[in-house]
Amino acid sequence: MNKPLTGNLAIVSGPSGVGKSTVIAEVLRRRPDLYFSVSFTTRAPREGEVNGVNYHFVDVPEFERMIAEGELLEYANYSGNYYGTSAKLIDEKLEQGIDVLLDIEVVGSKIVHDKRPDTPLIFIIPPSFEVLSQRLYGRGTDSEEVIQKRLDRAREELKEVPRYDYLVVNDRVENAVDEILSILRAEGCRTKKRIHLVEIEEE
Amino acid sequence: MNKPLTGNLAIVSGPSGVGKSTVIAEVLRRRPDLYFSVSFTTRAPREGEVNGVNYHFVDVPEFERMIAEGELLEYANYSGNYYGTSAKLIDEKLEQGIDVLLDIEVVGSKIVHDKRPDTPLIFIIPPSFEVLSQRLYGRGTDSEEVIQKRLDRAREELKEVPRYDYLVVNDRVENAVDEILSILRAEGCRTKKRIHLVEIEEE
Repeated sequence: MNKPLTGNLAIVSGPSGVGKSTVIAEVLRRRPDLYFSVSFTTRAPREGEVNGVNYHFVDVPEFERMIAEGELLEYANYSGNYYGTSAKLIDEKLEQGIDVLLDIEVVGSKIVHDKRPDTPLIFIIPPSFEVLSQRLYGRGTDSEEVIQKRLDRAREELKEVPRYDYLVVNDRVENAVDEILSILRAEGCRTKKRIHLVEIEEE
Repeated sequence: MNKPLTGNLAIVSGPSGVGKSTVIAEVLRRRPDLYFSVSFTTRAPREGEVNGVNYHFVDVPEFERMIAEGELLEYANYSGNYYGTSAKLIDEKLEQGIDVLLDIEVVGSKIVHDKRPDTPLIFIIPPSFEVLSQRLYGRGTDSEEVIQKRLDRAREELKEVPRYDYLVVNDRVENAVDEILSILRAEGCRTKKRIHLVEIEEE
């Protein structure tokens, strides 16, 4: 009756400054069995970013090779930089029964969802736009111009929120983390994921 | 921007002997803010059952009055006894922002879901049919004939499982309880429940 189980894929998005990295890091600490899919990008690393941890940093010819050879589940170009997700890495994990968490922006999430409609989409929202703005200014890593660009983009991204399955408010990190963990667990209880466990006897 | 919140309704079903009462009691202990909707029935109380706790025990004329006056969200007749759910009691709680848990069987769950399609349906399954059978014999409260009837009904009910949103396996009570709590929390994060929190700014 049992058939081989595969892992579950879930997508987390959220605007720059919402605290997504902090939330995801805590989710991974509490669910060390989760595989976090690190994106590939051609943009330059920010200070403190580590190759293979924050992103797989690659050059443009390498990224374009991955596109040409169909290795990417989705990719996009923002501000002149490529960002993309390796289908190969993800599918290897899912086939081993490992749950996979993807952190991608709204356009990428739509592409993945179109290809794999069962993938739950989670969007992390700030308690308010005001708080988001304060956080971006507070972190002090970006110029005024960059911050304004990020806020403009956040406004655009928030318009995509109705397409998402779940909204998590990052008012307190612990609360946001608990909600994401609950969503992941609940998604694993979906009937289609477990119907093979039911013995429907014919007499 | 904020509009008044209402509570969330969720339905739990499961065959007789699956341990549903034990699981629900523990869910309520851990979520004392939840309102558990107690069904009305015309069947005789079993030993140890308390009026207003396990069921609201009423006589046939009273039950038929409730039907006639449209007070029931759903009702059904099994083995000559009526079972039904008061819409009035539930809606009062939901309007106060209180989450409500309904324990109803498969036919009733379909009626409620047809009326309120957003209601998540959770089905508690036994680890195996063999275990269900052992539990029914083990509790020693029912005759052989009654047990056989319950097993036949369980077989029928399990055929309805594909209609449910979530399956929870009651292998260990704590595990089943954690899963139900996760499902309830995740359902509260649904975008349609929270979209009013998003400030989509127009410029």
